[in-house]
Amino acid sequence: MTLLEKVKIGVFKCGNIGVSPVFELLVDELAQREDITVRTVATGSKMGVEDVEEALPKLFEFDPDLIVLISPNPAISGPARVREFLLKTRVPGIVISDGVAKRIRNELEKQGLGYIIIMGDPLIGARREFLDPIEMAIFNSNIIKVLAVTGVLRILHQEIDKLTAILKEGLPLTLPKLLVDTDTIRDNSDFQNPYAKAKAMAAYELTKRVAEIDTRACFLEKDREKYIPLVACAHEIAQAAAKLAEEAREIEKYSDTLVRKPHSKKGEPLTKTELMLPPIVDKEIYRRWLEMSRP
Amino acid sequence: MTLLEKVKIGVFKCGNIGVSPVFELLVDELAQREDITVRTVATGSKMGVEDVEEALPKLFEFDPDLIVLISPNPAISGPARVREFLLKTRVPGIVISDGVAKRIRNELEKQGLGYIIIMGDPLIGARREFLDPIEMAIFNSNIIKVLAVTGVLRILHQEIDKLTAILKEGLPLTLPKLLVDTDTIRDNSDFQNPYAKAKAMAAYELTKRVAEIDTRACFLEKDREKYIPLVACAHEIAQAAAKLAEEAREIEKYSDTLVRKPHSKKGEPLTKTELMLPPIVDKEIYRRWLEMSRP
Amino acid sequence: MTLLEKVKIGVFKCGNIGVSPVFELLVDELAQREDITVRTVATGSKMGVEDVEEALPKLFEFDPDLIVLISPNPAISGPARVREFLLKTRVPGIVISDGVAKRIRNELEKQGLGYIIIMGDPLIGARREFLDPIEMAIFNSNIIKVLAVTGVLRILHQEIDKLTAILKEGLPLTLPKLLVDTDTIRDNSDFQNPYAKAKAMAAYELTKRVAEIDTRACFLEKDREKYIPLVACAHEIAQAAAKLAEEAREIEKYSDTLVRKPHSKKGEPLTKTELMLPPIVDKEIYRRWLEMSRP
Amino acid sequence: MTLLEKVKIGVFKCGNIGVSPVFELLVDELAQREDITVRTVATGSKMGVEDVEEALPKLFEFDPDLIVLISPNPAISGPARVREFLLKTRVPGIVISDGVAKRIRNELEKQGLGYIIIMGDPLIGARREFLDPIEMAIFNSNIIKVLAVTGVLRILHQEIDKLTAILKEGLPLTLPKLLVDTDTIRDNSDFQNPYAKAKAMAAYELTKRVAEIDTRACFLEKDREKYIPLVACAHEIAQAAAKLAEEAREIEKYSDTLVRKPHSKKGEPLTKTELMLPPIVDKEIYRRWLEMSRP
Amino acid sequence: MTLLEKVKIGVFKCGNIGVSPVFELLVDELAQREDITVRTVATGSKMGVEDVEEALPKLFEFDPDLIVLISPNPAISGPARVREFLLKTRVPGIVISDGVAKRIRNELEKQGLGYIIIMGDPLIGARREFLDPIEMAIFNSNIIKVLAVTGVLRILHQEIDKLTAILKEGLPLTLPKLLVDTDTIRDNSDFQNPYAKAKAMAAYELTKRVAEIDTRACFLEKDREKYIPLVACAHEIAQAAAKLAEEAREIEKYSDTLVRKPHSKKGEPLTKTELMLPPIVDKEIYRRWLEMSRP
Amino acid sequence: MTLLEKVKIGVFKCGNIGVSPVFELLVDELAQREDITVRTVATGSKMGVEDVEEALPKLFEFDPDLIVLISPNPAISGPARVREFLLKTRVPGIVISDGVAKRIRNELEKQGLGYIIIMGDPLIGARREFLDPIEMAIFNSNIIKVLAVTGVLRILHQEIDKLTAILKEGLPLTLPKLLVDTDTIRDNSDFQNPYAKAKAMAAYELTKRVAEIDTRACFLEKDREKYIPLVACAHEIAQAAAKLAEEAREIEKYSDTLVRKPHSKKGEPLTKTELMLPPIVDKEIYRRWLEMSRP
Repeated sequence: MTLLEKVKIGVFKCGNIGVSPVFELLVDELAQREDITVRTVATGSKMGVEDVEEALPKLFEFDPDLIVLISPNPAISGPARVREFLLKTRVPGIVISDGVAKRIRNELEKQGLGYIIIMGDPLIGARREFLDPIEMAIFNSNIIKVLAVTGVLRILHQEIDKLTAILKEGLPLTLPKLLVDTDTIRDNSDFQNPYAKAKAMAAYELTKRVAEIDTRACFLEKDREKYIPLVACAHEIAQAAAKLAEEAREIEKYSDTLVRKPHSKKGEPLTKTELMLPPIVDKEIYRRWLEMSRP
Repeated sequence: MTLLEKVKIGVFKCGNIGVSPVFELLVDELAQREDITVRTVATGSKMGVEDVEEALPKLFEFDPDLIVLISPNPAISGPARVREFLLKTRVPGIVISDGVAKRIRNELEKQGLGYIIIMGDPLIGARREFLDPIEMAIFNSNIIKVLAVTGVLRILHQEIDKLTAILKEGLPLTLPKLLVDTDTIRDNSDFQNPYAKAKAMAAYELTKRVAEIDTRACFLEKDREKYIPLVACAHEIAQAAAKLAEEAREIEKYSDTLVRKPHSKKGEPLTKTELMLPPIVDKEIYRRWLEMSRP
Repeated sequence: MTLLEKVKIGVFKCGNIGVSPVFELLVDELAQREDITVRTVATGSKMGVEDVEEALPKLFEFDPDLIVLISPNPAISGPARVREFLLKTRVPGIVISDGVAKRIRNELEKQGLGYIIIMGDPLIGARREFLDPIEMAIFNSNIIKVLAVTGVLRILHQEIDKLTAILKEGLPLTLPKLLVDTDTIRDNSDFQNPYAKAKAMAAYELTKRVAEIDTRACFLEKDREKYIPLVACAHEIAQAAAKLAEEAREIEKYSDTLVRKPHSKKGEPLTKTELMLPPIVDKEIYRRWLEMSRP
Repeated sequence: MTLLEKVKIGVFKCGNIGVSPVFELLVDELAQREDITVRTVATGSKMGVEDVEEALPKLFEFDPDLIVLISPNPAISGPARVREFLLKTRVPGIVISDGVAKRIRNELEKQGLGYIIIMGDPLIGARREFLDPIEMAIFNSNIIKVLAVTGVLRILHQEIDKLTAILKEGLPLTLPKLLVDTDTIRDNSDFQNPYAKAKAMAAYELTKRVAEIDTRACFLEKDREKYIPLVACAHEIAQAAAKLAEEAREIEKYSDTLVRKPHSKKGEPLTKTELMLPPIVDKEIYRRWLEMSRP
Repeated sequence: MTLLEKVKIGVFKCGNIGVSPVFELLVDELAQREDITVRTVATGSKMGVEDVEEALPKLFEFDPDLIVLISPNPAISGPARVREFLLKTRVPGIVISDGVAKRIRNELEKQGLGYIIIMGDPLIGARREFLDPIEMAIFNSNIIKVLAVTGVLRILHQEIDKLTAILKEGLPLTLPKLLVDTDTIRDNSDFQNPYAKAKAMAAYELTKRVAEIDTRACFLEKDREKYIPLVACAHEIAQAAAKLAEEAREIEKYSDTLVRKPHSKKGEPLTKTELMLPPIVDKEIYRRWLEMSRP
Repeated sequence: MTLLEKVKIGVFKCGNIGVSPVFELLVDELAQREDITVRTVATGSKMGVEDVEEALPKLFEFDPDLIVLISPNPAISGPARVREFLLKTRVPGIVISDGVAKRIRNELEKQGLGYIIIMGDPLIGARREFLDPIEMAIFNSNIIKVLAVTGVLRILHQEIDKLTAILKEGLPLTLPKLLVDTDTIRDNSDFQNPYAKAKAMAAYELTKRVAEIDTRACFLEKDREKYIPLVACAHEIAQAAAKLAEEAREIEKYSDTLVRKPHSKKGEPLTKTELMLPPIVDKEIYRRWLEMSRP
């Protein structure tokens, strides 16, 4: 196999989490990569068994080199059905999910699946008195901003980039087993200013809190007087988190130390800091990626 | 045909515009609608002819009752290919696109396609010195917020809701021919406070400016010293637009006059204002939808 | 006993929590109450057994009608020593403490002590690389603002006001057994605007998160590289919480619906809303207070 | 006398000024100093002669090495009584007060008392139509933030630290005679950025204005229509001052130049700047402190 | 004389205060008034005797019905020369000036001149290390915003409008003798929300503080290390004042209670509140204006 | 001719644009220049032919060395009359105007006039339902801030400074032919931080949008329901632009890199960056100015 082969990434989305809406764009933000093809099949906000059974086979017809399942709570029957499917094929598969998935980590490992579990990707405040399409979109907007600024989306695309690189090199694939928590942000971030990092961590902690509150408001509280204030409170926290994240990013702008890592046309990892300078290939990280695949 | 039939909506996304990431979620924000099924096939950020030719047929295999194409610039060869496909089938089709599509309105009408052209859904600052996956996600976050708050996403889901309602009733379908500009927001908004509306209109005007600046920065300027400040400037405007939009929404919160319009399980349009009260079925708008389908 | 008797409140502070700095001021904010006397003895930030043993007896020499112990973590030896002291006297005693005290609720009840446990009164980021006197004061400033706006301080002074009223009336005293959590704020707040309340609840949730993060940073993490970002993150959340709280209060100002409840000279509970109007005696709440003391 | 002796600081608070709530915490923010003991006796918001006469003797029973009186307006009868008491003992005494105390500076000097007069520690808007416990706490929160960020609290704790150091060394004590005005902040601040310093000075000027307005509103205006807007105006300025102060501090965070000066366990002055680095003993300032005590 | 006569207003500006830049625009904001003509002669930022002597005569050549002198400190020789000139003519004259003019009120009255002294129109931070054209313009921008929002500019144009009305009616003219201080704003404002008014008053108090600080920085401090931080501090306060003023105005927008008072083509005072409604003639105020001119 | 000659600048203002209110102050911000005299004659907000014919001759009586006409839309009859006047005299003349003037650039060149056309100096929202004197002043405040921060006012005063220098040196004068657009800001700014520059450019783009919207609202829309929201929207954008501009300037403060360029008493261009340092003569730019005048 050679460096020039094109990797085909198959994405299956059932239900929605914060990273779902922009996932495919992360790996090819400039729409110029010549080394990958992305195909997505999705079932909207629904994640029933029948949705999966009808939709998933279409994705396999694209003959993907790598399958990514993005879904909340992969333990429930619909997404679980996807995982069973993945077992039957020989296509390497990764599950990207929210904090609820933490419970089935062992199971995922047994099934030979990679996973990226994002602890700060929270449940939405899904109560009919509160959630309409607009509120839903705003919530996603806020969560996307937090996941972007804190570097969660960076981790996400670099994991896929690494797999793509390994597949292109024809090396043995080790699938990621990642739980993205505040520590991950603390220990793996591009922030140059420590207060910016602290604010980003704070933003992430807030989205984790959102998850806890919305879970209670959606599943435990039965009385409207009780759950409406809770979902409203959770979405206010999401908005506060987005502001904190924005503030963190502004700090880096203020000293022109904001790190950017675009993809080259060939899919190489580029990196840059000063705004007016061009990005350069990050050979070090590329080398590490390939190394990690070696025994 | 009867009210209880399930409508299957097929969505084809090639390339990305601001409404793409959350589109399917808009029609079923609570994931509880029993009257629709959504199936999406997408090609990531790419929109080449080969992408379309490989991916689109899978969507038709789902046998959709309605096809929605979401794509920037539907005039270029990839998305144009989708439109040709649509012509060959008898499935009603709608094109959702950005301001660039305005040029081909006549052509779309001739092809019998419906369209919703969103003038304030701007091109991203697609320059490799500037745009990396994180910047891309933040930009989308900002644009989603503007489109949500200003009511553009409301218009979008209500158009689809209307078509769904008409399909369920077995009535003749008139596809939308909409150009969503600042006037549309001025004349069709849920804002109760006129200053909130003015701020929302301002936010939308800003995203239109983003489109103009990015177009110039991406296609006309050749010198790095020239285009980097322009794309950076455009994304700052996008951020300012998101802030203005947020401010507009806060005004409505401050007087507890924020309108919410969730879907019922049966897919009926609900409506409510005071936060602590439950939504009720908006019979008036439903009636108007059906009426509009009649000759 | 008669309405005109003066109640002497003895306050013992060892160590500091968010409500400590302003506690005595809460019950006599205008320094004009003729029905109470307040005497405080405190040991600064220390809370050792020797501090308690030296300082506490002085408080009893004032011959108080009611003793209030304010301390973090009343389970550890110093504050526990205070509780033992209280048992030996016949003076009614109340423990005001932070979330850590939740664990010893049963013990407090057995000891016949009243308690007000404030779940959102968080541990400070007590790491020498981070906490200096200035950072400490700012943190307290932020927490005081959250506790004030959310209504926690309202609950606090009204509980003391109630006891004072009952003591003045010579009625039997029932000591409070209160755990102040987000639900308490939701169900007992003066907010007229539901979004203001949601933001206040959000602020309180944030301070609860601060407690969790600081606990980990102060007691679990041993490595400077690990705990410095955590305490910095926690204090950023405290700052964000103060901003959210301020925003909540502003909403009420914006519609001139901010409720104020000053004390009259005689110590009666007053209440008012429109800024330019005078407060009036809240007879209803006074009646309820006395009623609650009756069997 | 030796370096290891423990200094006992006695604090007497009658009435409240901005520095009162956190004073003791300033000298031992980490609650780990082994070289000092702090004992406080306080009379709440009241400052009558009878309060002083009952409460103050208890403080002397602790046998303090240094007495700190914190009170607004030390010229009126209650606090004046404290000063008389101090004269009768041989315990060195310092008065910490607000701008009103400026008038009696000569008298204080004659009485052999040290003093720290904080010009920007303003009177609260003590009008019953406006001030309730919540408004009071928020005002204190805002003032604490200004006094902290501007460096007033730094000056305060360093003066006490200096006296403690001198007492530990057994050297002759010179009590501070300080009037803390905007110039003090300009000429003695830890700010690295001159605009941050300018904003901090601005914040302090604002709190001075608050003092002037509240004095007028509380003592001169008799008509509700006149004084309510004035106290509301003064508290808005206090809030604006706190925001300016916060902004000043953020500037230093943005360039990671925020100076922190915690106490070591032994009570030595430490200092640090970059967040991720540890503090070191500031030998220079310690040496200067001791030197200042020498003839 | 009749209602239709055209009044010619002659404006002489020497030196600059906050109201100077927009003064003429205030009386004819829509450039459609048919009842007045405005002619201005100005000497830029200079206010020397020679400037006045050369420029002022030109203004009289326009044969104005009313002369307005706008100048800082009308006591110094240049502007004083203008006042002497005014005495010699029979044209009614008004001096508009800043707080420094308060000292010569008696003198102005003796000279038969009207005056409007704006206490919150502050001296600029005129130090060469700090003030360049940009800083100067920004300062003026901030002061204009404060003077506009607080209603000072309203008072200003209404005084001129009143004189114009009286001149048109041929009634005897009483020239204004106004000192515009915070009380004036408190007692004569268009604010509907009392907190908005309090914030506006706060903004005005801040500009008064700016005046005091800049006076000291420009005239008393000689050392660069001393005066640079002071002028920077003063301009930060001006910026904070502008923000407070903006916030006050936003409050009125939030409840759609912002009062607007445009001029009709005929120069009548109009008034309106709800944004979407048209203004109507304020007959009451017009009647009062004319009445005030009668003996 | 020698360096010490005094240059007399005659300014004629008819109607108002954003730079009008502060123009004369820009060239002598400290009121200390000994090398220039400024005389202004103005017609208020009116710009009719009769206004010009009465007022303009007075300006010539001052015998100016240079005439500056500041007016919106110099193509309409009033300002056009000024241009005709200028042709008849031998005094060098410059037209400063807004974007509308772009259309008559050729004509201006033919007339031998210099010009500075400011594309981002927008038409105000001149609708009687919206624009009153206060709204007008606030709009001007916002526009002045944008023009100041973005550097437009810098360009303006430097062009006049250049002409003054050349006149003082007795060199041949080349009048400016400048169209100030976003590119001008991008390519000629004092910003040290590229994100600050991007935000400033964004602010300028916003004011350009204001111009477009207000033009439509004032001249095209006839229905109140249509144009009120548009002018309100335009003024919200102006406010957002002022905030963005302020933010841009703050960035430079945050790193103490804000460039200041005051005038010396002799009128030399000075320059400085670090706040606490004195400005020095910018010989380089002075040399370039003179050079540009040479053939």
